[in-house]
Amino acid sequence: MVIFQPSARRGLVEEGTNIIEASRQLGVDIEALCGEKKVCGKCKVRIEEGAFEKFGITSRRSHASEWQEEENKFFTPAQKKEGYRLACVAKVQGDVLVFVPEEARAGKQVVSKAARDIHIDLNPAVKMYHVEVTPPAFEEPTGDYERVCGELERRYGLKNLSIDLPTLRKLPRRLREGKWQVTVAVWMDKDVIRVLPGKVEDYYGIAIDVGTTTVAAYFCNMRTMEVLTTVSMMNPQCKYGEDVMARITYHMMNPNGLETMSNDIIDGLNSLVVQACESTHPPKKKKKGIKLDEVEETANAAEPAEPDEEKAEEEAAKDDKQYLRLNPDDIVDMTIVGNTAMHHILLKLDPEFVGLAPFPPVVHRNLDIRARDIGIKINDSAYVHVLPNEAGFVGADNVGVLIAEEPYKNEQMQLLIDIGTNGELVLGNKNKMISCSCATGPALEGAQLSFGMRAAPGAIERITIDPETHEVNYKVIGKDAWKNYSKPEEMKTKGICGSGILDVLAELYTSGVISKSGRFSKSQKSQRYRINPDTKQPEFVIAWANETSIGKDVVISQKDVRQIQLGKGALYTGCKLMMRRMGLDKVDVIKIAGAFGTHVDKTKALIMGLFPDCDLENVLSVGNAAGDGARAALLNRAKREEANWVSRNVEYVELTVESDFQDQFMQAMQIPHMKDEFPHLEGIVLPEILHQK
Amino acid sequence: MVIFQPSARRGLVEEGTNIIEASRQLGVDIEALCGEKKVCGKCKVRIEEGAFEKFGITSRRSHASEWQEEENKFFTPAQKKEGYRLACVAKVQGDVLVFVPEEARAGKQVVSKAARDIHIDLNPAVKMYHVEVTPPAFEEPTGDYERVCGELERRYGLKNLSIDLPTLRKLPRRLREGKWQVTVAVWMDKDVIRVLPGKVEDYYGIAIDVGTTTVAAYFCNMRTMEVLTTVSMMNPQCKYGEDVMARITYHMMNPNGLETMSNDIIDGLNSLVVQACESTHPPKKKKKGIKLDEVEETANAAEPAEPDEEKAEEEAAKDDKQYLRLNPDDIVDMTIVGNTAMHHILLKLDPEFVGLAPFPPVVHRNLDIRARDIGIKINDSAYVHVLPNEAGFVGADNVGVLIAEEPYKNEQMQLLIDIGTNGELVLGNKNKMISCSCATGPALEGAQLSFGMRAAPGAIERITIDPETHEVNYKVIGKDAWKNYSKPEEMKTKGICGSGILDVLAELYTSGVISKSGRFSKSQKSQRYRINPDTKQPEFVIAWANETSIGKDVVISQKDVRQIQLGKGALYTGCKLMMRRMGLDKVDVIKIAGAFGTHVDKTKALIMGLFPDCDLENVLSVGNAAGDGARAALLNRAKREEANWVSRNVEYVELTVESDFQDQFMQAMQIPHMKDEFPHLEGIVLPEILHQK
Repeated sequence: MVIFQPSARRGLVEEGTNIIEASRQLGVDIEALCGEKKVCGKCKVRIEEGAFEKFGITSRRSHASEWQEEENKFFTPAQKKEGYRLACVAKVQGDVLVFVPEEARAGKQVVSKAARDIHIDLNPAVKMYHVEVTPPAFEEPTGDYERVCGELERRYGLKNLSIDLPTLRKLPRRLREGKWQVTVAVWMDKDVIRVLPGKVEDYYGIAIDVGTTTVAAYFCNMRTMEVLTTVSMMNPQCKYGEDVMARITYHMMNPNGLETMSNDIIDGLNSLVVQACESTHPPKKKKKGIKLDEVEETANAAEPAEPDEEKAEEEAAKDDKQYLRLNPDDIVDMTIVGNTAMHHILLKLDPEFVGLAPFPPVVHRNLDIRARDIGIKINDSAYVHVLPNEAGFVGADNVGVLIAEEPYKNEQMQLLIDIGTNGELVLGNKNKMISCSCATGPALEGAQLSFGMRAAPGAIERITIDPETHEVNYKVIGKDAWKNYSKPEEMKTKGICGSGILDVLAELYTSGVISKSGRFSKSQKSQRYRINPDTKQPEFVIAWANETSIGKDVVISQKDVRQIQLGKGALYTGCKLMMRRMGLDKVDVIKIAGAFGTHVDKTKALIMGLFPDCDLENVLSVGNAAGDGARAALLNRAKREEANWVSRNVEYVELTVESDFQDQFMQAMQIPHMKDEFPHLEGIVLPEILHQK
Repeated sequence: MVIFQPSARRGLVEEGTNIIEASRQLGVDIEALCGEKKVCGKCKVRIEEGAFEKFGITSRRSHASEWQEEENKFFTPAQKKEGYRLACVAKVQGDVLVFVPEEARAGKQVVSKAARDIHIDLNPAVKMYHVEVTPPAFEEPTGDYERVCGELERRYGLKNLSIDLPTLRKLPRRLREGKWQVTVAVWMDKDVIRVLPGKVEDYYGIAIDVGTTTVAAYFCNMRTMEVLTTVSMMNPQCKYGEDVMARITYHMMNPNGLETMSNDIIDGLNSLVVQACESTHPPKKKKKGIKLDEVEETANAAEPAEPDEEKAEEEAAKDDKQYLRLNPDDIVDMTIVGNTAMHHILLKLDPEFVGLAPFPPVVHRNLDIRARDIGIKINDSAYVHVLPNEAGFVGADNVGVLIAEEPYKNEQMQLLIDIGTNGELVLGNKNKMISCSCATGPALEGAQLSFGMRAAPGAIERITIDPETHEVNYKVIGKDAWKNYSKPEEMKTKGICGSGILDVLAELYTSGVISKSGRFSKSQKSQRYRINPDTKQPEFVIAWANETSIGKDVVISQKDVRQIQLGKGALYTGCKLMMRRMGLDKVDVIKIAGAFGTHVDKTKALIMGLFPDCDLENVLSVGNAAGDGARAALLNRAKREEANWVSRNVEYVELTVESDFQDQFMQAMQIPHMKDEFPHLEGIVLPEILHQK
């Protein structure tokens, strides 16, 4: 028996299962950022003793496997004594009681991926055609399908149509229900995928962006192009590892890893579809309470409604018409974008070789797959259109960004930055485009830091540090007021998320806590600065224990600063080397896609040297451009062709093979020389920062 | 509890289930020729009492539902007293013990559908292409699929190929297993359906003829066109009714009828596929017996083979190479023909409207369906090609006959007769073709007669009647010697099958037992002639009870003679009216397809007036031409186009709407005026028969 606290979930697992796997089987979410490679240290749990009685177990000892060498670096001797372990190391060897501290619990992320207004021409892959056919007669006993096809050709010029079997099966009844009038949904002018009785005009599709961390779905009316609703969720694969390499590793280490991860995302997409459809249903009414002595009466006679109730019901009936009551069966088209690894895992294509140099994907081009063939539960005969991959990890998500932003239609030299867990960059204009992928790592999103976390309630998202006093003010997600306007004990923070991370670095630097090289200045007097007694590393306290929900100080350590520097260095190096390839000193426009772009403070990003100098007015956040691209491909089939062309016409450059990559990278890790590299910051930031050497 | 005797199968069924449905659920086969319409009387069973103890049941009474009016005509009062019931009428209402008499048991049919030699040009829909690609490199990190496509285009000119997802999933491993050499199976020059490592030349397909009664499969090497093996079976749907209308009725009377029947035929096809594949495996060896005291020794050391055994093993190894060891996964293409009802039921297309005037099918044209979409277990990505239907019940099977026999390529006026449970006729030449369907009924195949049965062991297949003594001689299936050369008690007959039926009528007529009109001559003295005391009908004894395995006389009754006359009348009327439509007095060639054609005695068929006069030399039996057509479409994709053209260019005529149809039909039921209508019989049959009026 394994019991998890505080959730009290329990159950039997096979002996030898590690705690993290046991937590999955029993429905407890433990953070596993590194994919059980024993390096992130996020899955710290405490094995407890002697509290088994209340679960009906007589043994008073937990039976976990022996302490391993790898665990030493994550725990102090005191913690070891208390029973702390890494959940990816410790294995179940009998009854075990496991306490999961709050910081190890995988929380629900706040996802904000609303649909932007972008221009799309209406020309969907699925179109609706209304026809009326003559009933069969002895003189003309033609088959039902042939009569429909005859009219489709005569009225709309559609020739050589095929029809999917499940739809053909419904045809005879639908024709007769519609009294020989039907509306036919035709995919790509060649395949009949739905037949509805009578005349129907509105029809629906869904565009999906499968991110490494977040999945967003845009539910669209395909006639009006209206986005009915946007729904999103965490990628359920997060439990197998935070980044793409961790997922690929999970596949390679587990015989059914690929299938498990694929099934998880497919189940997730199906639940998003249901959620999207439910948004068109009236809210479920609560049943009226009926007193026991009234039961018989109401069962035999219609309950006489009170005048007020009658009115309310009338209102409700009127109100009711606004609900479309759509079901998954009403969704006749779906488009999907995702990076190459997400793409491969979703389709159960072996992602192993994508993770090995020279990183060839199984397939580049776009794919049209019957939804049912991958277990997607929408209309029986509907297709899923998966956008093409570029190269390496630069996948269909980047193609989505490109067809949404269309840099290839402009003279302006655009730099498109999509910072997810993996950074994907495109630089170019109508003449040429190049792309690269850079290992920004998860630090920029807040992961793999001492107190990094996802953008979930309790995460610090904004920070300022007073240059004089070094006092910290901050704001947490889920609470409106900044710390200085609240009681400290109300903050209940537990870590720092992506947008806060960049603030931290910029503020630490401008307040003089760290130097240009990222090193903590040892001369400072702040009581927030200290040497950690266990790690012997310098660290700076962002929030004191009494402001947190985890009972300890939230700090940023020297190592954390280095992680952030690595991330921003990788991104900056990518940008600079791409510019060099293109022979450019500067770019005209920088577009930042993804949630990071929405939340980041552009000025601070420039101060930190995340990307090259540019007029701040031309640094634009384009939101979830990948999702916009998926939506464009849903509503305009020409965009699918464009996507195929784009994916083959962006030159992928592997930057790590450049001879001076290491030098460039080392330099980019530093906080930059403002004056030299960012003339556009002049007048925006303090002169002393700009001229600091 | 329901218990069936003599099989002793037993089990629980829901109360209210009729006996025939209970028999299906418990795996007992009871004949149900009419599809439970209570009209064929084939499903006679005896409900027994008081023998329950040995099954551990205390009750001594069987609990079946009340006697129904419809049952009266099938049983004598004595039989009623004995407990005889129709299994389609009597329902289970508690414990029941049911005895199934031998004549009600659905036996295994002797099926003989060997492949004929017909000329086919080799041009299959699936072709194999061998390519070698360059491994991926940093300079060219193209996707695996794109590299294969590039070579397919460069070497073979194949463009815009798609690939099915299950095949794409296997691609990366197969490429690496084959050291960047693979053989690719491409369907219709557009879809990649299989990738094998290295160079592969032979590949395999299967052509299937789904008859109402018999299903035959031709397993072919698609490179050499060789038929590796032919396998066949009873259509497992026979238990739901013998003819197409009975099956359609079963669908309409049972909520899951269509699904049940479809699943049954699909399961059947899958077992045929397995059986076909197993013919390429070495026979399973019996394990050598090992004495107990030798066990340890042999477990630890390789057993030293005796010199003789060594030699035998060498032989076996040599012998072994002849086995291909093919599996269903090796089958990359399948074609299917069948009449419209079999076609619809197989594909779960609603057959209701095919059974209602003006008999429109759901679809005419040919269909390409992924095998997996209908549950056919062959290669993951393979297609099933279903040939097109003509009109009414004249379906893809008749199209198969046409593309095998190609009457449209000849000057000669050909009459093609395919007598299955439904008769399908085509008349024409290169200028014009017309087709019709005629309700020959099951009588010509031996069904719905007092002692009609399928061509199974024990069935009488040949009969002669001595014109003087009226003594009967006959031959049964499964026994070489005729009755006159055997002991009567060895014959063990239990009925008369299709080929015997025609003999009976011809012999009864030529021996003077019946007149031209089909009436039994009352003046005859034969002790075999009698009036049945129960039915008051004249009947003629073919086999005395002591020659049978059912303990009673096998007879042919006046009603039976009428049934046969109806069948032959329908066929002859069809032929004559078609000739009239075409303005023909005579036809040049008559081709008889199906098992009936193989077994029928041409002369006797002419005497009986089954089809119009023709030079006997030009009356040809073409065997299972429908299956040959399926095979032609498997090996030559041009035949699929031809089939589509043919199906649209045969004019379907509905003969029952002709004004003099009834007159023609009445006349055709008579045994014809030989001299007037069959000049070709002159010199072949006895003058007294020819000139008889």
